[in-house]
Amino acid sequence: MSHNAELIAVGTELLLGNIANTDAQMLSKGLSALGINVFYHTVVGDNPERLKAAVALAKTRADIIITTGGLGPTCDDLTKNVLAECFGKKLVYDEESAARIRAYFDRLHTNRPMTENNLQQAYLPEGCTILSNDWGTAPGCAFEADGVHVIMLPGPPSECAPMFEHRAAPYLRSLSDGTIASRTLRIFGMGESSVEARLRDRMNSMQNPTLAPYAKTGEVELRITAKADTLGEAQALIAPVEKELCEMFGPLVYGADVDSLEQVVAMHLKLKGLTLGCAESCTGGLAAKRMTDLPGASAVFKGGVVSYTNEVKQNVLGVPQALLEEYGAVSEQVAAAMARGARKVLGCDLALAVTGVAGPDPDDRGNPVGLVYVALAAPDGVRVRTLHQGMGRERIRITSASHAFDMARRWLTGLPDGE
Amino acid sequence: MSHNAELIAVGTELLLGNIANTDAQMLSKGLSALGINVFYHTVVGDNPERLKAAVALAKTRADIIITTGGLGPTCDDLTKNVLAECFGKKLVYDEESAARIRAYFDRLHTNRPMTENNLQQAYLPEGCTILSNDWGTAPGCAFEADGVHVIMLPGPPSECAPMFEHRAAPYLRSLSDGTIASRTLRIFGMGESSVEARLRDRMNSMQNPTLAPYAKTGEVELRITAKADTLGEAQALIAPVEKELCEMFGPLVYGADVDSLEQVVAMHLKLKGLTLGCAESCTGGLAAKRMTDLPGASAVFKGGVVSYTNEVKQNVLGVPQALLEEYGAVSEQVAAAMARGARKVLGCDLALAVTGVAGPDPDDRGNPVGLVYVALAAPDGVRVRTLHQGMGRERIRITSASHAFDMARRWLTGLPDGE
Repeated sequence: MSHNAELIAVGTELLLGNIANTDAQMLSKGLSALGINVFYHTVVGDNPERLKAAVALAKTRADIIITTGGLGPTCDDLTKNVLAECFGKKLVYDEESAARIRAYFDRLHTNRPMTENNLQQAYLPEGCTILSNDWGTAPGCAFEADGVHVIMLPGPPSECAPMFEHRAAPYLRSLSDGTIASRTLRIFGMGESSVEARLRDRMNSMQNPTLAPYAKTGEVELRITAKADTLGEAQALIAPVEKELCEMFGPLVYGADVDSLEQVVAMHLKLKGLTLGCAESCTGGLAAKRMTDLPGASAVFKGGVVSYTNEVKQNVLGVPQALLEEYGAVSEQVAAAMARGARKVLGCDLALAVTGVAGPDPDDRGNPVGLVYVALAAPDGVRVRTLHQGMGRERIRITSASHAFDMARRWLTGLPDGE
Repeated sequence: MSHNAELIAVGTELLLGNIANTDAQMLSKGLSALGINVFYHTVVGDNPERLKAAVALAKTRADIIITTGGLGPTCDDLTKNVLAECFGKKLVYDEESAARIRAYFDRLHTNRPMTENNLQQAYLPEGCTILSNDWGTAPGCAFEADGVHVIMLPGPPSECAPMFEHRAAPYLRSLSDGTIASRTLRIFGMGESSVEARLRDRMNSMQNPTLAPYAKTGEVELRITAKADTLGEAQALIAPVEKELCEMFGPLVYGADVDSLEQVVAMHLKLKGLTLGCAESCTGGLAAKRMTDLPGASAVFKGGVVSYTNEVKQNVLGVPQALLEEYGAVSEQVAAAMARGARKVLGCDLALAVTGVAGPDPDDRGNPVGLVYVALAAPDGVRVRTLHQGMGRERIRITSASHAFDMARRWLTGLPDGE
C-alpha cells in the first residue's frame, strides 16, 4: 500500500513572508526518497482554530500528517495541544524529556536562562513515540490514531532537518513497502516548451517509471522516477529510459544527477589536468562566482578579470584599442580578444569571455538588451557564440554565464559547439 | 473592511521538494505591506481534481485567491482551466496576448522556436483583467466572481515577483481601504539576537506602528509598519520611531528602504563622482557580481580581479612575491597589497580586497575556516579588517563581501571603521 502524506506548517512568520517554508521542501524531498506521496502542503498561522481545521481536512485525505513548527514556548506549544485534541489524546509529563531540556539550557549561554514554560515542552501525547531533539529544546513525537500516522517536528530548519533524517525517517521507513529511485538528466540549450513538445506523447504513455520536466533558469531538468520492491529493480526500470532520452537530446544532455554546468566543467578540467579562467563584462563576476561556489575550485580555476570598462579591457586584458574603437566593446572581435587576453594574463589553459548588454538599457552603440557574445580561448584557437536573449537583466546574466560554461564543457568533451 | 487572501501554489515540483515555495514568501511580504491578511498557503500538484478541491475550500474562507504556477504549456495551462471552471468562466482567445507571445519568441534564440502550445497561453477567462507579462511568456490575469477576487500569476520567481509588484499589487491596492506604510532600516554589524535583546521591551509596548526585526545573511532588517487613514498619517507615525532607532544603533544603520549595502555604496560613489574596483580571492567574484547586479553599475564600478591563485595575485595585481612567501595569501599584508594593486591596475578611486579561508577545509598554512581579511585602499591610505566567522562556505563568502562594502560605505560617509 502506498502512503500519502500531508505537510502542515504552523507559523505566523510564514504567512507574513518573513521566512520561506524550506522545511516543506526538505521533507518533500525526503518523503519522495522514501516512496511516500505528498499531495498537499498547508501553512497556517499560530491560530488554534485554523490549525484544527487544517488537521481535520488532512485526516480526510492523508494517512500521514507531518507538522512543522508551533512546538516552542513562544507559541504555547500550540501544535502539540491542537493535535492531541484532534486525535483525542491527553498530554502527559515525560521526565526524560524534562531532563534533556534542563541539560540543554545548562550548556547554553548564560543570558538565555531556562524559563518555566520551557518545561511545558516535556508534556507529550500519551503513548507516543518521543523523537528526542539533539539540536534544540522541543522534542518531536509520533503516534498512530484514527488510521493516521502523526509526526510533529520543530520548525527551525536547523532542527527540523536532522530531526527528520535521524528520527522521523527511520519511523516512516518501517511503514513503507517498496522503494523509489530517481535520476535527473540536465539539459542546456533547449527551452522547456520544446523539450516538452518532443516528450509529450512519450510521457503520457509512461506509468512506471514516470518522467517529469522542470524548467530552471535557461535549463531543463528531466526527472525519471521509478517504484519497485528493491532499489536495484527501480534502477533497472530507469536505465532504458535514461538511454532513450540521452539519444533523443544528444549533446544537449550535460549530465545526470549533477548540480550544475560549472560542476561538470570543473570535473572534466580535473580529469584532464587543465585550468580555467575568465574575463567578464556584462556578467560582472558571476561566472567566477559560480566556479568558486564549488568547494575545491582552486584546483582548476585560476581566476578572472571583471572588465566593466574599456580601460580595464585594454590595460588588464590587453584588448587592442583599435578593436574597441572599430567594433565596440559588445562585439565578436572584442569577446575573442578578451578570451585570448584572459588566457594569457591568468595563465590558464582555457579562458571564457562574456561581453554583452544585460540591460536595462541598450548600450551607447545601440546594441539591444540581450545581445551577448561568449568566447572560449583554448590551445587550438578561439570560438565565439552570439546570443540574443529576450529576458530580464538577471536571467541574461545567468544564461550568458551558462553558455560560457557550455562552450567549455563541449570543448572538454570533444563535442561540436552547436549553440 | 479588511481582506483575507489565500495563496495556492500549483506544481508537482513543489511537492517533490525540487524547489521551495519562495513565491509564497514574496507574495506574503507584499500582501502584508498592502495591509491584506494571509491565513493560509496551500500547495497542490499538477492535478486538476486536487486543485479544484483547494480552490473550493479557499472560496469559503478567503476573499482574495492568488495562484502561482500551472500557467505554462508544460502543464496544459492547468491553473487557468481549473479556475475558469470553478468560477464558471469561459476562456477566450486574446489577440494582444498572442502577439506578445509571438514577439517574445521572435526576440529569442533561433533554436528555441515557438510551438503551438505556447499560443494556448493566449486563452484567458472572459472579462478578466489581463496582467501582461514582460518577464516571460505566460500572461497572468485577475477577475472578480462569486464575491472573490482571483489573481493568477506565473510560477517562476523571476516572473512572479515583477508580475506581483507591477501588475497584481496595483490591482489589489485599489481594493483596500485605509493605508499601511512601512519603512525598513537596515543594520550591518550586529547579530539578530543582540538587536532583538536591545529592542525587546520597546517592541512589546508598541501597537501602531509595530516593529519587527528580520535576520538576513549577516544583516538585520528592522521593519516599522503603521496603519492610518492616509499615507501621510501613517508616515507621521513612523518618523519618530525611525529617529529613535537611528539614534540607538548609530552607524550600524546603513540605510532606510534600500536594497543592499552595495546599493548604498554605489549611491555614495555617484554623489561623490568616485569609482570602485575590487580584488577577490575567497569571495571569487561575488563582490563584483553584487556590484554589477545593480543596473547602471558601470557609472561607478570599473571592474575587478579574481585572484584565486598566488600567480594571479602577483602577475595581475602586482602583490610582491616576498609578501606572499612571508605572510601567506591569507594575511593582513596581502589583503592590503591586493587592494593597493587593484586600485592601480583598475584605475579606480577606491579598491576593495578580500582574502581568506571560505572552507570547507583550512588552507595549507593551517589558517582556520572563517578567517578573512578585508581591505580598502583609498586616496588617504589602506585599512584592513580581520574577520573570524564561524559559519558555512556560502555565508562566509556573502558576509565577507558585505564587510568590504561596509568599509567603503564608512569611508564614503566619513564614519570611523569600527568593525
